[in-house]
Amino acid sequence: MKYEFSERAYTLLRSPLLGIRMQARRGSLISLAEELPAEELFPLPMLAEAAASVISADAQALQYGDPEGYAPLREWLIGDWLKSKDVHVGEGGVLLTTGSQQAVDLFARVYIDPGDRVLVENPTSPGVLQALRMQGAVIIAAEGDGEGLHPEHLRQLLDRHRPKALFAAPNFTNPSGILWSVQRRKEVLELCLERDVLIVEDDSYGDLHFHSYSQPPSVRYPSLYALENNTVSGHVLYIGSFSKTVAPALRTGWAAGSREIIAMMAAAKGMADWQSSSLNQRLLYHLLDVTAFDLRDHIALLNREYHTRLKLMAELLKRSAWKEAAYRYPGGGMFLWVCLPEGLDAEVLLKAALAKGVAFLPGPLCSPDGGSRRYIRLNFSHPGRDELLLGMNLLGEAVAEFTARS
Amino acid sequence: MKYEFSERAYTLLRSPLLGIRMQARRGSLISLAEELPAEELFPLPMLAEAAASVISADAQALQYGDPEGYAPLREWLIGDWLKSKDVHVGEGGVLLTTGSQQAVDLFARVYIDPGDRVLVENPTSPGVLQALRMQGAVIIAAEGDGEGLHPEHLRQLLDRHRPKALFAAPNFTNPSGILWSVQRRKEVLELCLERDVLIVEDDSYGDLHFHSYSQPPSVRYPSLYALENNTVSGHVLYIGSFSKTVAPALRTGWAAGSREIIAMMAAAKGMADWQSSSLNQRLLYHLLDVTAFDLRDHIALLNREYHTRLKLMAELLKRSAWKEAAYRYPGGGMFLWVCLPEGLDAEVLLKAALAKGVAFLPGPLCSPDGGSRRYIRLNFSHPGRDELLLGMNLLGEAVAEFTARS
Repeated sequence: MKYEFSERAYTLLRSPLLGIRMQARRGSLISLAEELPAEELFPLPMLAEAAASVISADAQALQYGDPEGYAPLREWLIGDWLKSKDVHVGEGGVLLTTGSQQAVDLFARVYIDPGDRVLVENPTSPGVLQALRMQGAVIIAAEGDGEGLHPEHLRQLLDRHRPKALFAAPNFTNPSGILWSVQRRKEVLELCLERDVLIVEDDSYGDLHFHSYSQPPSVRYPSLYALENNTVSGHVLYIGSFSKTVAPALRTGWAAGSREIIAMMAAAKGMADWQSSSLNQRLLYHLLDVTAFDLRDHIALLNREYHTRLKLMAELLKRSAWKEAAYRYPGGGMFLWVCLPEGLDAEVLLKAALAKGVAFLPGPLCSPDGGSRRYIRLNFSHPGRDELLLGMNLLGEAVAEFTARS
Repeated sequence: MKYEFSERAYTLLRSPLLGIRMQARRGSLISLAEELPAEELFPLPMLAEAAASVISADAQALQYGDPEGYAPLREWLIGDWLKSKDVHVGEGGVLLTTGSQQAVDLFARVYIDPGDRVLVENPTSPGVLQALRMQGAVIIAAEGDGEGLHPEHLRQLLDRHRPKALFAAPNFTNPSGILWSVQRRKEVLELCLERDVLIVEDDSYGDLHFHSYSQPPSVRYPSLYALENNTVSGHVLYIGSFSKTVAPALRTGWAAGSREIIAMMAAAKGMADWQSSSLNQRLLYHLLDVTAFDLRDHIALLNREYHTRLKLMAELLKRSAWKEAAYRYPGGGMFLWVCLPEGLDAEVLLKAALAKGVAFLPGPLCSPDGGSRRYIRLNFSHPGRDELLLGMNLLGEAVAEFTARS
């Protein structure tokens, strides 16, 4: 039969990322395209111990759980945020999700109607754009610089478009890796409070902060959620996940915010898939609360290793092929956002790179209007030293072939 | 701030089921309302062994996987369906989901536009109704009897409403527990094929078949998907899960169908949550393929126990309080669908029952138009003998108080 898909289903099939994933998984490609943590750093022995204990201890670990997620893990999170980030969460203020992407999608489903205007940082994560397109949002690009969104530009957009929501990631924005200054955080929050615009703050990369200060990084650079500090009727939905800090296959992310929004998202969660795996949530809780695993120590280990990989990638970008390229050196996260030499198109380069066996994320996937054609996103967290050297060599060759021609 | 939720988000908050779940979880209520398997029958030692092996064997088990799900488990399923159900699936024809509810939701999102007409069996599962309402479908009730949907009535509905899809569960329909006759299966399929109507066939309860025949039950009562047997451009999307046969917290369900539909649903899956937990999928695969666990033997064990519980519940329904009530004795599944004595309203009874400490699912949650007000759904799979006795006593008391008055 001829299938008649829904109108917006067709927005889903644009991404070349699926093909890249598949090839990388088969080992026929070095992928600098994805958002993968380094699997050699996963705490496997302690996870295996946690899994065996949790399953043996209580048959409830395999039963249906609550749509909101396993209560002790939600409480653990609230305690950790208070201790390490000075973030306060009210009763009924946390929902566990299948990664942070599901938090984005559930929020979009309960808050955005077709035609609603939504601001996103430009560039922004492809996953945010997909969820907003699927919901029929009118997506408006908000521009910034190395300090974060431009307040004056933001004010104009807010007044002109009257958007319902702003999606932002002040800690190492995916893909650009920008860490917003504290001043900008305050200005952006103030503008949104004045106009009752809801902010979806993605803090998925906030813990991957490579520098140390006298205070914890997340206290020195407070989240918008912490800055507002309104657990009753706040303007910020705070999302993130354990995917980058423990392991993605546990598929455990969260949304935190006012009880009213969280209740609505939990109802949508129940409709979408009843609940995420409470087995995985119990396993995580056991790992965090019972085993010798210490999340902050583990994150420190990740940051040392990722920082080393970032430095290696930056070193490789000094080679001649890249001399017309430019990027901001990030203080954390997983990505470099590289502006290609003039005249070079990211999607044209991707074809050449794939032919050589290396992939990256082309800029237009991160842009609401398909712009950023001269930009590419390179991941430095996943490839080990050899893979990174080989991948960057192949990519450098592809770039050199184009620049030599022009 | 005052939150402005999306128009259809408000359809989500109607269900009293969330409150019931919460109370039952706290142990302050005997719940005959839910769809829970008996946790004392979970294969815990083999699951614990599988979890420890899988996590220790390969760090990839904790990494991001494919949106379609772990390939060896998809292949295992295809092999099992062929062997035990005579079901053929083509290449790229299976998507693993977070339970069968996510398969329903993803299908609705990629196939149904607001205003599209969709037929559902009346009564039907609350989860199907929620997902269709969230998508803005116009839901039309199709009626049937103990043999399945009425073909002539269905023909009239198809011609009058020109629906895009039909949701049906020919094997122990939730909530009514009806097993469609083979003749009706063929007639319904034929009508939908003639008019190019897509059928979403939920087979979540098909394995919980209490009678044995010379052939396997799923060969004697073939699924609509098996009857059509068109792996290229078929009219049937076949969904189900391991939640009722192994354990719900593994959150592993599926959709099987033509490559084109599965590809679109996989793209939606990537947008919704990237992927379900590949750790859980690997764990299931290990359980099914490596350990001594035999799925068919385990299902036989479940069926013996559930059949015993059904007989006990049926015995308790012979008591005087229920003498004006009526129900069809099901050949499988997890539920009895009971018609209350005349004049008794399911939601009024629920209030009285909750006050006594017992819950059931009121019929209107299973009806597109809030009908079935005289019906209640009773679950017999989860409560053990003592709980079942006590719960049915309390419920009988509540019924008797109403019938004594009238």
